[in-house]
Amino acid sequence: MRILVANVNTTTSMTDSIVGQARSVASPGTEIIGITPRFGAESCEGNFESYLAAVAVMDAIANYPEAFDAVIQAGYGEHGREGLQELLDVPVVDITEAAASTAMFLGYKYSVVTTLDRAVPLIEDRLKLAGLDARCASVRASGLAVLELEQDPGRAVESIVREAELAVSQDRAEVIVLGCGGMAGLNESVKERTGVPVVDGVAAAVTIAESLVRLGLSTSKVRTYAPPRPKKVTGWPITRPAA
Amino acid sequence: MRILVANVNTTTSMTDSIVGQARSVASPGTEIIGITPRFGAESCEGNFESYLAAVAVMDAIANYPEAFDAVIQAGYGEHGREGLQELLDVPVVDITEAAASTAMFLGYKYSVVTTLDRAVPLIEDRLKLAGLDARCASVRASGLAVLELEQDPGRAVESIVREAELAVSQDRAEVIVLGCGGMAGLNESVKERTGVPVVDGVAAAVTIAESLVRLGLSTSKVRTYAPPRPKKVTGWPITRPAA
Amino acid sequence: MRILVANVNTTTSMTDSIVGQARSVASPGTEIIGITPRFGAESCEGNFESYLAAVAVMDAIANYPEAFDAVIQAGYGEHGREGLQELLDVPVVDITEAAASTAMFLGYKYSVVTTLDRAVPLIEDRLKLAGLDARCASVRASGLAVLELEQDPGRAVESIVREAELAVSQDRAEVIVLGCGGMAGLNESVKERTGVPVVDGVAAAVTIAESLVRLGLSTSKVRTYAPPRPKKVTGWPITRPAA
Amino acid sequence: MRILVANVNTTTSMTDSIVGQARSVASPGTEIIGITPRFGAESCEGNFESYLAAVAVMDAIANYPEAFDAVIQAGYGEHGREGLQELLDVPVVDITEAAASTAMFLGYKYSVVTTLDRAVPLIEDRLKLAGLDARCASVRASGLAVLELEQDPGRAVESIVREAELAVSQDRAEVIVLGCGGMAGLNESVKERTGVPVVDGVAAAVTIAESLVRLGLSTSKVRTYAPPRPKKVTGWPITRPAA
Amino acid sequence: MRILVANVNTTTSMTDSIVGQARSVASPGTEIIGITPRFGAESCEGNFESYLAAVAVMDAIANYPEAFDAVIQAGYGEHGREGLQELLDVPVVDITEAAASTAMFLGYKYSVVTTLDRAVPLIEDRLKLAGLDARCASVRASGLAVLELEQDPGRAVESIVREAELAVSQDRAEVIVLGCGGMAGLNESVKERTGVPVVDGVAAAVTIAESLVRLGLSTSKVRTYAPPRPKKVTGWPITRPAA
Amino acid sequence: MRILVANVNTTTSMTDSIVGQARSVASPGTEIIGITPRFGAESCEGNFESYLAAVAVMDAIANYPEAFDAVIQAGYGEHGREGLQELLDVPVVDITEAAASTAMFLGYKYSVVTTLDRAVPLIEDRLKLAGLDARCASVRASGLAVLELEQDPGRAVESIVREAELAVSQDRAEVIVLGCGGMAGLNESVKERTGVPVVDGVAAAVTIAESLVRLGLSTSKVRTYAPPRPKKVTGWPITRPAA
Repeated sequence: MRILVANVNTTTSMTDSIVGQARSVASPGTEIIGITPRFGAESCEGNFESYLAAVAVMDAIANYPEAFDAVIQAGYGEHGREGLQELLDVPVVDITEAAASTAMFLGYKYSVVTTLDRAVPLIEDRLKLAGLDARCASVRASGLAVLELEQDPGRAVESIVREAELAVSQDRAEVIVLGCGGMAGLNESVKERTGVPVVDGVAAAVTIAESLVRLGLSTSKVRTYAPPRPKKVTGWPITRPAA
Repeated sequence: MRILVANVNTTTSMTDSIVGQARSVASPGTEIIGITPRFGAESCEGNFESYLAAVAVMDAIANYPEAFDAVIQAGYGEHGREGLQELLDVPVVDITEAAASTAMFLGYKYSVVTTLDRAVPLIEDRLKLAGLDARCASVRASGLAVLELEQDPGRAVESIVREAELAVSQDRAEVIVLGCGGMAGLNESVKERTGVPVVDGVAAAVTIAESLVRLGLSTSKVRTYAPPRPKKVTGWPITRPAA
Repeated sequence: MRILVANVNTTTSMTDSIVGQARSVASPGTEIIGITPRFGAESCEGNFESYLAAVAVMDAIANYPEAFDAVIQAGYGEHGREGLQELLDVPVVDITEAAASTAMFLGYKYSVVTTLDRAVPLIEDRLKLAGLDARCASVRASGLAVLELEQDPGRAVESIVREAELAVSQDRAEVIVLGCGGMAGLNESVKERTGVPVVDGVAAAVTIAESLVRLGLSTSKVRTYAPPRPKKVTGWPITRPAA
Repeated sequence: MRILVANVNTTTSMTDSIVGQARSVASPGTEIIGITPRFGAESCEGNFESYLAAVAVMDAIANYPEAFDAVIQAGYGEHGREGLQELLDVPVVDITEAAASTAMFLGYKYSVVTTLDRAVPLIEDRLKLAGLDARCASVRASGLAVLELEQDPGRAVESIVREAELAVSQDRAEVIVLGCGGMAGLNESVKERTGVPVVDGVAAAVTIAESLVRLGLSTSKVRTYAPPRPKKVTGWPITRPAA
Repeated sequence: MRILVANVNTTTSMTDSIVGQARSVASPGTEIIGITPRFGAESCEGNFESYLAAVAVMDAIANYPEAFDAVIQAGYGEHGREGLQELLDVPVVDITEAAASTAMFLGYKYSVVTTLDRAVPLIEDRLKLAGLDARCASVRASGLAVLELEQDPGRAVESIVREAELAVSQDRAEVIVLGCGGMAGLNESVKERTGVPVVDGVAAAVTIAESLVRLGLSTSKVRTYAPPRPKKVTGWPITRPAA
Repeated sequence: MRILVANVNTTTSMTDSIVGQARSVASPGTEIIGITPRFGAESCEGNFESYLAAVAVMDAIANYPEAFDAVIQAGYGEHGREGLQELLDVPVVDITEAAASTAMFLGYKYSVVTTLDRAVPLIEDRLKLAGLDARCASVRASGLAVLELEQDPGRAVESIVREAELAVSQDRAEVIVLGCGGMAGLNESVKERTGVPVVDGVAAAVTIAESLVRLGLSTSKVRTYAPPRPKKVTGWPITRPAA
């Protein structure tokens, strides 16, 4: 089985990190392919960048030359999953939803710890639309920008642990979701410090994508995610297919 | 005052229609400028096309060479308003929200009549995120595609009136919102046939945009819609500025 | 266009203040007429007074001898708007709803800062019934009574700014609504101190009323706000028409 | 124990009917006193009439010359209960809420059958504000006006039974609430025909009022329903006390 | 009238305490019979114990040899009420719901003060399913285990009062519900200290059960609470009937 | 990895059917062990039977003599999952939640088709408590009892397909969940007839349980699902351990 894991920004070291996390939990027969958008922001931290990423990921997937069995949209709180579902016949799994869905099997309430304060509404909106917000105790921001996570992992752990502890003690969370693709790898540290299960969205998404493929399930095509109707689409894809 | 009214698809006759509707209600001192995206679908009827439109509208606005006082996003149930709010200092008004907000001053419940069945979830999601769904009685589809509205206005009126009547009698709507930019101009016919107020989103958005400008109000910049952080954004804007 | 702006209490200096605020934003051709109830409390700060005001405003409007194009109910969190809608053919705009509706075009969440703690539930209830509460971050009380606002504007600004700042920092509001007709005029001070847009309900209501009239829209009469059925109504209006 | 049961309209035969229903379930030591407003509509079927009734009931209670232990507001879906709670130290029970509260002990979902279609939103709003709407399957209108209930009881039963049956079969109601003070007395007929428990609001309210008095419980005075602040209230009460 | 009051744990001194509280408010003609489960935990403080109690109470009631008119399930936040409703023709009243329902007649919002932190979600879930959570300001834990309430009443009052005060001042509760059968008897102390009405679930349930019997109302049998279908049930009842 | 799959009724042929379905999707290294309760109903179709099943499943698991890695509660809309989570350190997966969670990755809305009408509220309640109801279009009953599914599979498919088709066309479901453990095996037929993805709860639960084990995740023990406190529990377990 081949799963495409799409980074939402143009920073290839983050694609590598996400792919590494995905591979660490993938089943033996699963091939993980990292996808990096050909345009867009070096990190996604707001609506403009997220909309751009939505289209850049669709563009990158549209340009991918070989067959695949599932796609993981590996951006936290990002736009675009619904568009991929229209374009593709294989399952599409968003890591925001994968993490929330998994956390709900583990505790009464979960909290998300993300990067910047401005990302909180995007995550809240995604969870609301996905209908996975009822047991979300809070979405908390560590105050670190996406790229700072890579530059200073020690400080990242500290600030994330601090918010995770507040989520558990004040917001009554019983599970913590690490709300940023770039946080992959920090979950062991956070779990050790807080004593609650910590869910990484990329890892959760890999098991869900594998499960859907194994169960022979994919996106329903009867209404919302039917293929786009035949029509003139100017300038699509945005970038030319690789020669 | 200059207001940019952005069509979400690449069909210029629809831009003209929207602009005409906007001008018919604009105040004497208001200049209405139509914006047509430089890429994307000839009509927007799903998530893929809508995400593409979100970026195409941002691209077109980014390329607009002169000053302006407000922007109207003239697609019904489309993505993108939040991105424009980050990029701009002037008010941004989405017609889906403008229509709902206006309808709520006119009756206990309102219904939206849109084009295709597959557009219903997009509109429902936009209203939910906007927090304007509590008094929405229903979103109904006429079954007509966007471009069919222009091709056969007579049939369009019939199918829209039929759904509007069901919305009033069965869903208990007291106001009808015409849920497609391309429906501008049909509201008198629908009102006459159903006996309830009919709100056109473009017209509503023009008065709201003018009002915000007049009141000296614009998008809050303290968190969600703060300007994008300085960073490397590859390939933006998508198209080159007009020479 | 003539708009009646109804104060909800019997203090004429407050009517004057509200009228002044309304006129400062009204379009050139709009005539603003202040209405003061002929009975009721000198300030409205609870349910008893608010219900009395609802009837007193209907009574005053029923006694108004000339034609008019719209009515603004200028009490924050007060009862009565639905009754006026039944009695009148012209649009009726409640300032609680006008302010919320306007604030939602400006930021992800808004907070209301009102006078006394006991007014908070009335405002929350009005927003809930209006379906405009989903993006309300909080309703906060400054602790000042309605009439104290006039007596000590400096202290009023301080206490309102303090709550507004807490709304922004703690409740994550991005827009502030001044939740009392008597606060009209303080919005510039509050905006300067908090850095977020500040919406005054009276000003917002004037632009909305003008817009509805301009668009040829008024209250739907098919069900909830149909005219009262012909029947015997003893003692109505409460006061006799002016000779 | 003395309980005042306030009719909301000026039709004394309806006061008599309500008092009869109340007495039929009252405990031996309970005295039921009927209150008829001194002004207002002969029947309440909309917001204007309901607001007027809210004030007229407060006026009538304020003019009542003797002591009492509880007040029942015997109008279905009417305004005013909160005002009475501010003015009085004794418990105030609204029949809309009493019926819903009682119905919820009897089945998974309940439906309300009321008079005219235009009364539906008033009832829905009262239930929503009271937080008693989550298990309300539907509010259905029989199409009969309030006063028609008295004039043609046979037809009333038929039209009410028809809606009750639809509520049970289509809306999945398991309990029926008769949503009009004037329906008191029809509940046996409706129960026999539908096979589900039928709750009469006046009867339910009597037992609840008695229970609150017996338990030594009354309205909390710490915030929302604190007594009105001392201030000038012009023209109150509306009518002069009986000599 | 005979009412069975079922303790949910096997501690007979708690059954006695509950029965005492029930008798103190019962009407002259009402006989209160305490029921103690024949198996299960000495105190209920979690889901395992609560599910066990649900079955143990059904078992004890099934073994009760004489006729009765109503059953009170006297555990706070416990499972089982729906099962009793299926098995019995007489009304079944859960004290969690009785207390909430009563509190809602007394103030705008109520809070529950319970024992251990882990009981909070059980109570929240019961209120949510009962549709009585909309006006619940908070469920707070005093930190005392169920059996500690009996062992050290003085300390119990202090810890309960502390949480009740926070509920009133911070969560805006206007009524306090004592959320544990074992707290019966503390309500006067708490009321005196907090100044708001305090509702005891057992007392509230007694008046509601009496009222339902008096009104001739019992559980609807048309769907959810219809008697179990005839079928083989192995090992039921769990314990043998008393000889 | 060893997963216990607990049937909720005492019919061993249903245990076999469930185990067969589980094994058909389990990974090569996964051992599926069927658990049949030692007491309770031959089929679960209501609250009494469901509460009994909750305890009977806990009893059976408590008596299971060997180690295991996860437990699946294989009853649709049944009680008990939370109790198992307290008693066990390994993950517990409820098939109602597993199916809903899986369906939400496949379409905008899903519907559940279950057996009898009276089971609908149990399923709705479980989904509500699990916070998985927001995208549930409907829960529909086929009218067939649990044991009839085995007796007449042809008729079962017909009645289930009929409701599934109505769910898709009228309720706008895009995915169907088969809401009864006994329906395992019918999903291919239903999928073929309706054209939408069909999710079987047992199959979904197996992949989720495997995934949680693989990710090293299990129930959070910090609050709601902490182990029961040490205390006297009379008569537990209900049945004696197998010799």
